[in-house]
Amino acid sequence: MSRTPLLIAGAFDAADKARLEAAHPSAYVAGPEDMASLDNETRASVRAIAYKGHKPLGGEAMDHFPNLGLIANFGVGYDAIDVNAASARGVKVTNTPDVLNDDVADLAVALLLAQCRNMIAGDARARTGQWAREGELPLNRKASGSSVGIVGLGRIGREIADRLAAFKMDIHYHARSEKQTPGWTYYADVVSLAQAVDFLVIALVGGPATEKYVTRDAIEALGPRGVIVNISRGTTIDEAALLDALETGKIAGAGLDVFLNEPNIDPRFAALDNVVLQPHQGSGTVETRRAMALLQLENVTAHLEGQPLITPVN
Amino acid sequence: MSRTPLLIAGAFDAADKARLEAAHPSAYVAGPEDMASLDNETRASVRAIAYKGHKPLGGEAMDHFPNLGLIANFGVGYDAIDVNAASARGVKVTNTPDVLNDDVADLAVALLLAQCRNMIAGDARARTGQWAREGELPLNRKASGSSVGIVGLGRIGREIADRLAAFKMDIHYHARSEKQTPGWTYYADVVSLAQAVDFLVIALVGGPATEKYVTRDAIEALGPRGVIVNISRGTTIDEAALLDALETGKIAGAGLDVFLNEPNIDPRFAALDNVVLQPHQGSGTVETRRAMALLQLENVTAHLEGQPLITPVN
Repeated sequence: MSRTPLLIAGAFDAADKARLEAAHPSAYVAGPEDMASLDNETRASVRAIAYKGHKPLGGEAMDHFPNLGLIANFGVGYDAIDVNAASARGVKVTNTPDVLNDDVADLAVALLLAQCRNMIAGDARARTGQWAREGELPLNRKASGSSVGIVGLGRIGREIADRLAAFKMDIHYHARSEKQTPGWTYYADVVSLAQAVDFLVIALVGGPATEKYVTRDAIEALGPRGVIVNISRGTTIDEAALLDALETGKIAGAGLDVFLNEPNIDPRFAALDNVVLQPHQGSGTVETRRAMALLQLENVTAHLEGQPLITPVN
Repeated sequence: MSRTPLLIAGAFDAADKARLEAAHPSAYVAGPEDMASLDNETRASVRAIAYKGHKPLGGEAMDHFPNLGLIANFGVGYDAIDVNAASARGVKVTNTPDVLNDDVADLAVALLLAQCRNMIAGDARARTGQWAREGELPLNRKASGSSVGIVGLGRIGREIADRLAAFKMDIHYHARSEKQTPGWTYYADVVSLAQAVDFLVIALVGGPATEKYVTRDAIEALGPRGVIVNISRGTTIDEAALLDALETGKIAGAGLDVFLNEPNIDPRFAALDNVVLQPHQGSGTVETRRAMALLQLENVTAHLEGQPLITPVN
């Protein structure tokens, strides 16, 4: 059996998988649960894993590969990977930051506008002939000129804020520390931020440190005119509290690209007419997924050739 | 019978109609077709018409009112009113510009993003459980960093361009003359503009001068990656050519708030999966419709009190 320095793990697009296979001798598994079934020789030869997926990839899986030096994640969010376990084993982790910032920010703005302007119902009304039979929709809500609170002013959060500033919105934000952002207003906690704004956009990283970071109290502080947009991770908000607030009118609505237990999302979402839902497609464009795949491959190649990693996270 | 200096004509919202009635003694008709049925004394006393609607209001209707001095339109687009006929009779026309620019520009950007990111299908996929059963949507298309052509760089066109510039888009435009817009590229005709860009956003005024202004040639010049957004009037584009191009893949898609024969729009639109449709709700927010109503009333009051009109168009 030939040496296979690369293990490709996850539900890769065919073209991305073929590109990895063409670049390096490789083996393939569908996910972490299949890693144990690889033969000993393959496991011993694996030096890098190209990973794609949201299933947990922990120390036990890493221990199958005595010569593992890199887990190259497809995606900016690497919360599926136990980075502490990797670091403890001398395994580097890389992600694909920046190349997806534009797409995720675009979808955040689009979710905000689509919720405000009732566009899902609008499309159905025009498309089904309801417009002719029943007349116009109830008036919806102005977006421009509102105030927005960004939770997490990292690279994606800044892209969102820059776009919304062009809609003449007042920019407020919460982050671990105050940033150099003239004209934008900093809040040390999410509840104070939520009290100050019409729209709350969550742009946190995922992982244990941000679990339920947007609490029930923060959701309720937003108030009955408030709209929440989440393009980060389902874990970053108290989802049960969000559903309660949406069902009881404690907030006005939400635009959501991320959920707990994707793709088996809570069926309570389906019954809501004040939300716009998307199937976790923040970075889901042809252009960006290709850029992410190329950056993942660059990291793999750098490691296998002994060059510095492009985008290490540990 | 008391004098009724104001005639309220059209499908007004109850609160807006009540506000007009509270401000001035008035009569009411549903539309231009009912004006002839008013009694002679009422007709003679009418000095201003507060108009709302898209039905033609021409010289014949105006001639029912010998003392008519003003037609105050609800809306920035006054193409339903024969302004030449009004001018010939010494009748002034006002509209409600500017107060709706933000909303219409917001919806233009939202239509562009929603078409690009396949958001109508995305909402259905997350909402119906199809996401869990059938997996992710096909990858969609990046919006940021594209090139956009604005057809008509008036007040609304500029608001659209300012927003899209924050999405790092190259701004190209066609207008009657070149404007002072550093960094934006002027085209003397729509075909050349369409050839140069990914997205074409129509922000023309309506009326006979712009009928089918975006021709079949311009639509086809946009090419198979091209997307058209129209938030102006259904009349400003060759709608039959647009439907042909959408059905045959000569362009990639469209985001449309306006159509011929609203609300009885062409049923060919309903069969398309590459369009996002809205029921002419560009200015349809609570905040903006109220501002439009107040501006219409200000114009009526100014005329009846012999003061200068706020927003005359002739």
